[in-house]
Amino acid sequence: MSPPEWLEPNLRPIQKDGWRAYLFRLMFQHHKPDERRFDVVLLIAIVVSVLIAILDSVALLHVRYGTYFYAAEWVFTILFSIEYLIRLSIVRRPLRYALSFYGVIDLLAALPTYISVFVVGADHLLVIRVLRILRVFRILEMVEFSKEGSELMRALHSSRRKIGLFVLFVVLITVVFGAVMYLVEGPEHGFTSIPRGMYWAIVTMATVGFGDIVPVTPLGQVITSMIVLIGYGIIAVPTGIFGAQLIQSGMEKRASRRIDSTDSCARCGEREHLAEARYCHCCGERLTVEAAE
Amino acid sequence: MSPPEWLEPNLRPIQKDGWRAYLFRLMFQHHKPDERRFDVVLLIAIVVSVLIAILDSVALLHVRYGTYFYAAEWVFTILFSIEYLIRLSIVRRPLRYALSFYGVIDLLAALPTYISVFVVGADHLLVIRVLRILRVFRILEMVEFSKEGSELMRALHSSRRKIGLFVLFVVLITVVFGAVMYLVEGPEHGFTSIPRGMYWAIVTMATVGFGDIVPVTPLGQVITSMIVLIGYGIIAVPTGIFGAQLIQSGMEKRASRRIDSTDSCARCGEREHLAEARYCHCCGERLTVEAAE
Amino acid sequence: MSPPEWLEPNLRPIQKDGWRAYLFRLMFQHHKPDERRFDVVLLIAIVVSVLIAILDSVALLHVRYGTYFYAAEWVFTILFSIEYLIRLSIVRRPLRYALSFYGVIDLLAALPTYISVFVVGADHLLVIRVLRILRVFRILEMVEFSKEGSELMRALHSSRRKIGLFVLFVVLITVVFGAVMYLVEGPEHGFTSIPRGMYWAIVTMATVGFGDIVPVTPLGQVITSMIVLIGYGIIAVPTGIFGAQLIQSGMEKRASRRIDSTDSCARCGEREHLAEARYCHCCGERLTVEAAE
Amino acid sequence: MSPPEWLEPNLRPIQKDGWRAYLFRLMFQHHKPDERRFDVVLLIAIVVSVLIAILDSVALLHVRYGTYFYAAEWVFTILFSIEYLIRLSIVRRPLRYALSFYGVIDLLAALPTYISVFVVGADHLLVIRVLRILRVFRILEMVEFSKEGSELMRALHSSRRKIGLFVLFVVLITVVFGAVMYLVEGPEHGFTSIPRGMYWAIVTMATVGFGDIVPVTPLGQVITSMIVLIGYGIIAVPTGIFGAQLIQSGMEKRASRRIDSTDSCARCGEREHLAEARYCHCCGERLTVEAAE
Repeated sequence: MSPPEWLEPNLRPIQKDGWRAYLFRLMFQHHKPDERRFDVVLLIAIVVSVLIAILDSVALLHVRYGTYFYAAEWVFTILFSIEYLIRLSIVRRPLRYALSFYGVIDLLAALPTYISVFVVGADHLLVIRVLRILRVFRILEMVEFSKEGSELMRALHSSRRKIGLFVLFVVLITVVFGAVMYLVEGPEHGFTSIPRGMYWAIVTMATVGFGDIVPVTPLGQVITSMIVLIGYGIIAVPTGIFGAQLIQSGMEKRASRRIDSTDSCARCGEREHLAEARYCHCCGERLTVEAAE
Repeated sequence: MSPPEWLEPNLRPIQKDGWRAYLFRLMFQHHKPDERRFDVVLLIAIVVSVLIAILDSVALLHVRYGTYFYAAEWVFTILFSIEYLIRLSIVRRPLRYALSFYGVIDLLAALPTYISVFVVGADHLLVIRVLRILRVFRILEMVEFSKEGSELMRALHSSRRKIGLFVLFVVLITVVFGAVMYLVEGPEHGFTSIPRGMYWAIVTMATVGFGDIVPVTPLGQVITSMIVLIGYGIIAVPTGIFGAQLIQSGMEKRASRRIDSTDSCARCGEREHLAEARYCHCCGERLTVEAAE
Repeated sequence: MSPPEWLEPNLRPIQKDGWRAYLFRLMFQHHKPDERRFDVVLLIAIVVSVLIAILDSVALLHVRYGTYFYAAEWVFTILFSIEYLIRLSIVRRPLRYALSFYGVIDLLAALPTYISVFVVGADHLLVIRVLRILRVFRILEMVEFSKEGSELMRALHSSRRKIGLFVLFVVLITVVFGAVMYLVEGPEHGFTSIPRGMYWAIVTMATVGFGDIVPVTPLGQVITSMIVLIGYGIIAVPTGIFGAQLIQSGMEKRASRRIDSTDSCARCGEREHLAEARYCHCCGERLTVEAAE
Repeated sequence: MSPPEWLEPNLRPIQKDGWRAYLFRLMFQHHKPDERRFDVVLLIAIVVSVLIAILDSVALLHVRYGTYFYAAEWVFTILFSIEYLIRLSIVRRPLRYALSFYGVIDLLAALPTYISVFVVGADHLLVIRVLRILRVFRILEMVEFSKEGSELMRALHSSRRKIGLFVLFVVLITVVFGAVMYLVEGPEHGFTSIPRGMYWAIVTMATVGFGDIVPVTPLGQVITSMIVLIGYGIIAVPTGIFGAQLIQSGMEKRASRRIDSTDSCARCGEREHLAEARYCHCCGERLTVEAAE
C-alpha cells in the first residue's frame, strides 16, 4: 500500500542542478547525512517554538516573560515563513505541494501569528505547529520505524470499513439514548437538550464519566446502567477488529516469507516449500530455478 | 449465516406487474439505480427530520424557530405515514412486514408526533427515527460493507454464549458489591439503597466513575479498590472473546480457502483434502491435477 | 482440566435406594427432567428472595411493605434452612459437602436472617443468596454453556500466572505513586494518607476517575498524566494475555481435531493426516488401523 | 533475549572460598534452600517496613504509634544499610553492582530515613523500598514464573517501537486538543493554560475523566465528544499491538517446536526443515529417521 497522493505528492525540483536543486534535496528528502541534519534542526525549531507557545499560555509566565515569548514567536514565525516560501519556490509544481498534507501544515505553522495581529488570542493556535513533528515520521520511516509504522497503518487501513460501521453504530446509540435521557431526566437534572444528552451519552459510553451531568431519577439510573453495559461490551469491538487485523497481516507476512505456494515440484507436485528450498522436501527432486524463485 | 426471519422476512409484492410491483421494487429492493435513488432520498429525509427533532430540543432554538420545527415535524410525519401505508398496501402479507424489525421501526418513525397531540413531550421521541438509518445498512450491504458487516455479525453471533455468561457474571458481582457497599457506606454517604449501590457498582466496574456517589469510609475505599481491580481484570474478557472470535473466523475462512472443499475425489467423491494432498486420504486414489489445484 | 475438589467434591448418597437416594438425585444431580425441575424451582426461589432483599433496602418500599418483606424473608430463610439440613442428611460424608464451595454458599444463604435477630442490618447480607445462582451454571453446564464456560475457565486458568504477575506489578506501582502523590499534593488537597493516595492511584490507573480526589498542583497534574498513560498502556496487558490464551486454546483444539500428528504412514513416513484419513494423502498407501485411530 | 547489563550485571564474589563467598552466594543467588531462605527473610523485612511507612502516614495512627513507627523505621534502615554495605564489600567490582538496577534500589531503600534528618517528610519516600520486592521476581524466575514473565517481557520488548509510535501520536493529539480547548473554553471554565488543557486532554482521552475540569460551552462539548471518540478508538491500538505480539510469539514458539531446528541434514548440514520434510530441501538428501523425528 503506497501512501495516497495528498499525503506524499510526487514532487520534483524546479531545476535539476544548482542551488535550488540542492535546497530541494535538503528540504524534501531524508536519506543523506546533510538532509538528515536539516531535518534535525527543523525538528528542534518546531519543538522549541511549540514549547514557547505552551509556556506563554501560563498566566504567571506570560506576565514575567511575555515580551521575550512574543519576540521568539515572531522570530520562529518569520523563519517558518521563509522556509515555506523557499519550499514553494524550488518545487516544480508549487500548487501540488501547497495543497498536500505537509504543505497545508507548513502554512498553518506560520499563519496564526499573522492573524493574531488582527484577532486577539489567535497566536495560541501556534501549537498547531506541533503537527509539523509528523515530518519526523518521514525521517524515522527511512531508518527503523518504517516496518512498524507501515504495519500499524496497514492494519488501520484494512479495518477502516469495520471501524466505520462501528462509529455509525455508536452515533445511532448516542442519538437514541441522548433523547431518552433528555425525556427521562429533563432539564432540571442537567439534560437541558438532546445535544447535551448526546454529549453525556458519548462521555458515558466511552467510560470517561466526568460527572458534570449525572442521572438522578431511578429510571435514569437504570437506563444509565444499560448504556454503561453496552459501552462496556462494545469497547471490545474496535480492539478486537484492530488486533485481529494486526495478527492476520502478521501471519500473512510470515506465511509469504516462509512458504512458496505458487510453484510446484515437477515430479510429485508438492507446492509448499521453504522460500530458500532447492530440492523438494517431499520427494527429493531438484526444484527448477523458476520454482525456487 | 442468513439473517433471522424477523430481521429479513421473505416479502413479496401483491402484484407481479403494474405500478404496485414497481413501488415494491423501489421501496423494498436495493440493487438497481432507481431503487438506490429512492433509498438515498429516504436517507436524507430521515437525517433531516432527526436533526430537526434534535435542534428543537435546544431551548434557545425552540423559542426562535419552534413553529418552523413544528411544521417540519408534521410534514415529515405525514410523509413517513404515507410511506408506511404504501409499504403495507403493496406487500402480499402486510402483517409479516408490520411485525418485522423494519416494519416496527417504520411505524415508530411516525407514531410519536401523533401521540404528542395527547401527551406533552412525546414528540422528542421522534429521534427514534434515527433507527431508520439502519435501512442504509441494507443498501450498503449490497455494495462494499457486506463482507465487513457480516463478518462482525458472525463473530458477535458465535460468541453470544460466552458474552451471555460474562453478563450474568457481571450481574452477580454487581448485586453482591451493591449490597456490601450499602451496608458499609450507608445512606449518609449516598448509598441510599441496594439498587443505588448496584448502579454505583456498575458505573465503577465499567470504569465510568461519575463521582456522584463515592466511598468515604476507609473500608469502603478498600472494597472499591477491589471492585476496580476486578473490573479492570474482566474488561479483558469481552475484548478477548470477541477478538479471538474475529481471528478464528478469519483463519477458518483462509483455511477453507486452502483446504480444497469444492473439488472431489474422482473415485469416492470425498471433498475435504489437505491442501498438499496428492492422493485421496479416503480411498487412496491419485487426485487429478484439477482436484489438486 | 477437571474442577478442583473444593468446587465439585465427589459426593455420594447415604443410601443406594429409597427416598434419601431419590432426594440426593433430585438435589445434587442435574440430568433428568425431574432433577431439572427441582433446579428451576430453586432458581426461582433464589431470584425472588434476592429481589425482596433488594427492594426492602429502598426506604420508600421498606416503609410501605416492610412487614410483608420481613415475612417473606423468614419464609425463604426457613425453606433454605430445611433444604440445607436435608442436603446434609442425605450425603454420605456431610462435612465434605459442608466445606465445599456450594456447601458454604448454601449455609450463607440462610445465616444472615438468623444473625439479624441479634445484629441490626445483617439481613441486608441476604443478597449473598444471589451466589446460589451459580448453581445454575451446573445446570447449564449440562446443556449448552458447557463448552463456552469451560473454554473461558481454561483460558483464565492457563493465564493465571501472567495475570498474577500483572496484579503484583499494579500493586507496586500503586504503592509508589500513592506515596509520591501524598508527598506532592498533601493532606490539604485530599491526599490525607498513603493508603488514601493508593486508593486514588488505583481508581485513576483503572481509568475510573471518580473525581473525589484530584491533583491540584501543577507537579501533581504532571505525575497524574504519567500514571494515566501508564494505566492506559498496561490496560492492554490483561486483555492481550486473556485474548491470546483464548485464541491459542482455540487453535490447539482445532488442530487436534483435524490432524493426527503422532502416527505416521508406513511407506513414506508422512505424519500429518486428517483425523478420518484411511489412505496416506501423500503416497496413497493404506494407513494401518492404528495409524487411522 | 537475555536481560540487559544494567538489570543483571555479571557479578562475581571477591573471594572464591571463605565466608565472603558464602555470603555472596546467600545474597546474590537464588537456587539452593539456604539462598531461598535468605530471600524470604529479606522479602518479609521489606513488606513489613513498607507497611509501617504506609501506616505512619495515617494521621490517627501517627499520633498514637508514631514513636514506635519511628523506631522501627530506623531499625529497618540500619539493617538495610548494613546489608547494602555487605553486598558492596563481597562483590569483586562494587561499582558495577552499585550502578546496576538493584544496586540503586538497594541504596534508595535506606537513603530516605537519613535524608529525613535534614528534610522534613522525606521519610515518606521510604515506600520506595517496595521496589525491592522486584527482587522476588528473581526468586520466582527460577521456579515457575520464569516462562510467563519472560514471555510477557519479550512481547513488550518486541512491540516497543509500535508502542513508542503510539505514545508520540498521543502526545501530538494532547498538545493540539489542549490548546484548542484552552482557546474554546478559556480560563473562566477551568482551562487556565495550555498545560492544564493538556492535562485535561490526557485524562479525558484515557477515559479517566475526573470531572475537575469539564467543558461548559456547546462547542467545547462537541470537541470533547470528538476527543472521547478518538480516545475510544485508539485505546484499541496498544491492546491490539500487545495481544498480537503475544499471540505471534506463542505461534512462533509452537512453530519452532514443529519445524525441526536442531537436527541437521547429514550431507549439507541444513538445519531448518518443514516438519513433514523427508528430503533435505537444500541438497535433496534423504533425511534420516532421527532427523525426521
